[in-house]
Amino acid sequence: MTTEQWLEVFRGIGKEMRAGLPAILDLETGRTAIGRGAGGDKTFPVDKWAEDIMVAAMEQVHATNGAAFTLVSEELGTRTFGAGTQVVLVDPVDGSNNAKNGVPFFGFAIALLDGSTLAELKAGYVMNLAVGDEFWAVRGKGAFKNGKTLRTPDTADIVIVSYEATDPANDLPLILPLLTSARRTRCFGSTALDLTYLASGATSVFVTATPSRTFDYAAGMLILEEAGGIVTDWAGSSLGSVRAGLDRTVPLLAAKNSVTHQKALALLRKN
Amino acid sequence: MTTEQWLEVFRGIGKEMRAGLPAILDLETGRTAIGRGAGGDKTFPVDKWAEDIMVAAMEQVHATNGAAFTLVSEELGTRTFGAGTQVVLVDPVDGSNNAKNGVPFFGFAIALLDGSTLAELKAGYVMNLAVGDEFWAVRGKGAFKNGKTLRTPDTADIVIVSYEATDPANDLPLILPLLTSARRTRCFGSTALDLTYLASGATSVFVTATPSRTFDYAAGMLILEEAGGIVTDWAGSSLGSVRAGLDRTVPLLAAKNSVTHQKALALLRKN
Repeated sequence: MTTEQWLEVFRGIGKEMRAGLPAILDLETGRTAIGRGAGGDKTFPVDKWAEDIMVAAMEQVHATNGAAFTLVSEELGTRTFGAGTQVVLVDPVDGSNNAKNGVPFFGFAIALLDGSTLAELKAGYVMNLAVGDEFWAVRGKGAFKNGKTLRTPDTADIVIVSYEATDPANDLPLILPLLTSARRTRCFGSTALDLTYLASGATSVFVTATPSRTFDYAAGMLILEEAGGIVTDWAGSSLGSVRAGLDRTVPLLAAKNSVTHQKALALLRKN
Repeated sequence: MTTEQWLEVFRGIGKEMRAGLPAILDLETGRTAIGRGAGGDKTFPVDKWAEDIMVAAMEQVHATNGAAFTLVSEELGTRTFGAGTQVVLVDPVDGSNNAKNGVPFFGFAIALLDGSTLAELKAGYVMNLAVGDEFWAVRGKGAFKNGKTLRTPDTADIVIVSYEATDPANDLPLILPLLTSARRTRCFGSTALDLTYLASGATSVFVTATPSRTFDYAAGMLILEEAGGIVTDWAGSSLGSVRAGLDRTVPLLAAKNSVTHQKALALLRKN
């Protein structure tokens, strides 16, 4: 299967989720966890429902196109579909805390890799499920929002910093010098969408202090990089050698361009 | 005009904005400020466009129903429609920073007062313009989201704290003890929506450190109070004597219930 064909599969899944979403979110039982996913977070009905849609699509791709790949997804963990080196890395609903609470800010994130590390990222797709906006990128072929090319600004100023803090008591003091240097802060509650809105020029920097998981950021990372942005760990090192999986990997520092990234790194090192 | 009739006018404005929004947000010129509003913020095309819709509706209400009132709106300032004691207090687009940057999280907020202070708040309406969800309340008659009654939880735990920081360098240190006590933080960039999502039980506490303006919070405040929540200043005092207007008034502390509010107040006083 070509990367473009994969992207069409990803888009189809996003559209199917978006169409069915109102019904699942209206469930009175939506706020009650029904288990815990392989990634460690609680599973809510919306997570399970979204993963079922995605898995059905993967089963179909395997059966009809003969694609062989390993699926890594937040809820189910790892499942092999034949013997292949490709990896499909998924967070069915990134921001499920928002979704289950009726806050319309959460997304579906899916990435294709030619091997097991992020250096082999080939395609990324993120849909903002609350509004239907689509973001995608293919390595070397640019990043897009609803089909329009994304380019991050080349300005060096830190206007808006968004962040994700899984453990505010630990995380906020670590990122405070960066947050207080900004004109505004944002904490939306969805890493995948944070990266796509950074890619679309809405924010200047995105930071996490608790190590993030690849299924949350791989797709958004490629979209940001293809739009001209940069993502590293807090040492400023490339994430190319990070393995796709369910574990927490490294804390992220992402920026609209390399000059802004250097400024943000310097601010983090103040601590 | 009855309060219910006013509410129908407010809903009509919200729906008209929602219907026309895609066209105005697609403008390439959307990110360039076209002036500064009476409330002090920059005016963007989306702000001006939304205010024009609202003002046209007010002119029609005055002309056809003979309603006499004072309009106070973020962009135009104050305009009288005949000699009456009622006040209509509006933020045409709350969260215009998000709107102009393509981040789908911003709302239309409008409140009706029988006089010039917040003690005389009679009705509040907020629409999340990005998704079309409507929130409203009439004093003594409850709060609603898309027609369904809202009740805040009676639990005392501080799970999610949302905040607005107009000046992060000054504001974040002041609210840090409250933020670090939470399991998660949020900063969405729209005070009106922060209050409505607190009213709908998605968050536990909402706080601002820079004094907020009544057109940003009056509508959401009544919705929250009618849902069982509480809004005060940082001294824990009622906002009833605050005058509706364009000025920055007091910093806000809002919570899902009074026990949670007392816990949050104690955390703020740690500083």
